[in-house]
Amino acid sequence: MNWGALDRYAKSLIKEAAQHIKHSFFTEIEISAKSSANDLVTNIDHEIEQFFIKRIRRDFPEHRIMGEEGFGDDIQSLDGFIWFLDPIDGTMNFVHQKRNFAISLGIYIDGIGMLGYVYDVMADDLYSAMKDEGAFLNDIRLPSLEDTTIEQAIIGVNASWVAPNRYVETAPMIDLVTKCRGTRSYGSAALELTHVAAGRVDAYMSMRLSPWDVAGGIIIANEVGAISSTLTGVRPGLLQQETFVVANKSIHTQLLEEFIVLKK
Amino acid sequence: MNWGALDRYAKSLIKEAAQHIKHSFFTEIEISAKSSANDLVTNIDHEIEQFFIKRIRRDFPEHRIMGEEGFGDDIQSLDGFIWFLDPIDGTMNFVHQKRNFAISLGIYIDGIGMLGYVYDVMADDLYSAMKDEGAFLNDIRLPSLEDTTIEQAIIGVNASWVAPNRYVETAPMIDLVTKCRGTRSYGSAALELTHVAAGRVDAYMSMRLSPWDVAGGIIIANEVGAISSTLTGVRPGLLQQETFVVANKSIHTQLLEEFIVLKK
Repeated sequence: MNWGALDRYAKSLIKEAAQHIKHSFFTEIEISAKSSANDLVTNIDHEIEQFFIKRIRRDFPEHRIMGEEGFGDDIQSLDGFIWFLDPIDGTMNFVHQKRNFAISLGIYIDGIGMLGYVYDVMADDLYSAMKDEGAFLNDIRLPSLEDTTIEQAIIGVNASWVAPNRYVETAPMIDLVTKCRGTRSYGSAALELTHVAAGRVDAYMSMRLSPWDVAGGIIIANEVGAISSTLTGVRPGLLQQETFVVANKSIHTQLLEEFIVLKK
Repeated sequence: MNWGALDRYAKSLIKEAAQHIKHSFFTEIEISAKSSANDLVTNIDHEIEQFFIKRIRRDFPEHRIMGEEGFGDDIQSLDGFIWFLDPIDGTMNFVHQKRNFAISLGIYIDGIGMLGYVYDVMADDLYSAMKDEGAFLNDIRLPSLEDTTIEQAIIGVNASWVAPNRYVETAPMIDLVTKCRGTRSYGSAALELTHVAAGRVDAYMSMRLSPWDVAGGIIIANEVGAISSTLTGVRPGLLQQETFVVANKSIHTQLLEEFIVLKK
């Protein structure tokens, strides 16, 4: 495989898809709900996923695709080439803000992340990484993350984590929110992963993410030394919905041991 | 007063200050703490405030200035012309993210907001408004806000609001976080005001803000029909630190009556 050529191919595809998304603002976007009233999807999510799949199947017929909207393959194992695609990550932002959403793409071979992309369409910020070759924001290399402490950290945690929920204990979470320097919440898992990779936020966590939400961003975060795992500390399996945390290496273990206490 | 000319003057001053801020990324920024370890200030905050004050005093010697860093006047009444200036709103973002901070400026006469500006320096997004003349993002007019409901609303609320605190009752806040469509937190009061004005977020609240944090954004939000008040529902007094909420008109009262319950 010529990875440089595949990298150029993927970037070109992403930029072309972004043009379609931007044009969509001049047409009527059809919004509907999926699993719940707050789990939104639009006709644009569908169209963009179909655009990617059509191209990838034409040009790489032996590769498999796992896409958020279900037009890809039924993936039960990580064997071979798999493209993990979220055509619009942060659909609520897409609908409500017309910004702060991203195209997320990760290309894996036998479960190893080789090429990762998160494109903040409206800001024209393309985060990308190739395994062992570093991570970039557009053409600028992202430096390796420096160590930090909980007291100096900005944590990407939504207010719903502090409200009683069925995943984590509330008291240690309140402790975290109180101890850290500040909290932020942006509404797109893929973009929050890039914020961690760029050192803008020192950790991001979610109670339930799908492989296409994180597959691209994990590769980017990995190249600057951030650690991604489930909330039980194991490597994301990328075959089903899981809990998720990505953090600066110097606070990842402490977050899991002291502050994110899973309910029994 | 030629308001059009004053508007052009203020915009020019803001853009010139922004150039200084961007250049500062190529030099060493000196960071220190103010009231607490998380209340940061830098030499750039100081330099930018002094830049504004020098110019305003030269060109409008009869006007008074209230600035975050204390180089302005000691303001005890709202009489006459007052410029409310935050040279860098969101200093933690400035230091930690090198983006998502703003220059905030509001020009008032006898307590009436006449010209408001919030400039997202790194995104090059200048939000501005002149009283009764509408609000703009760069040269594009922001439309009046459409009505919404709590269930459809995105609420700008930090995780610390849901943790026990000395300002508001926790239970109704948990209720709000659970009922609304989603929450966001960006770390700059001035920018969060513009998100409400642009309809990206439907409400934003804070337990303690100073006049310079909100004076510019209030004028912008007001022009699209958003309501600003303290958490007790009265108009911000702009002479001291106060609680603050800005919201889409259709949910402002409900937020104060049902969800933001002040501790006795």
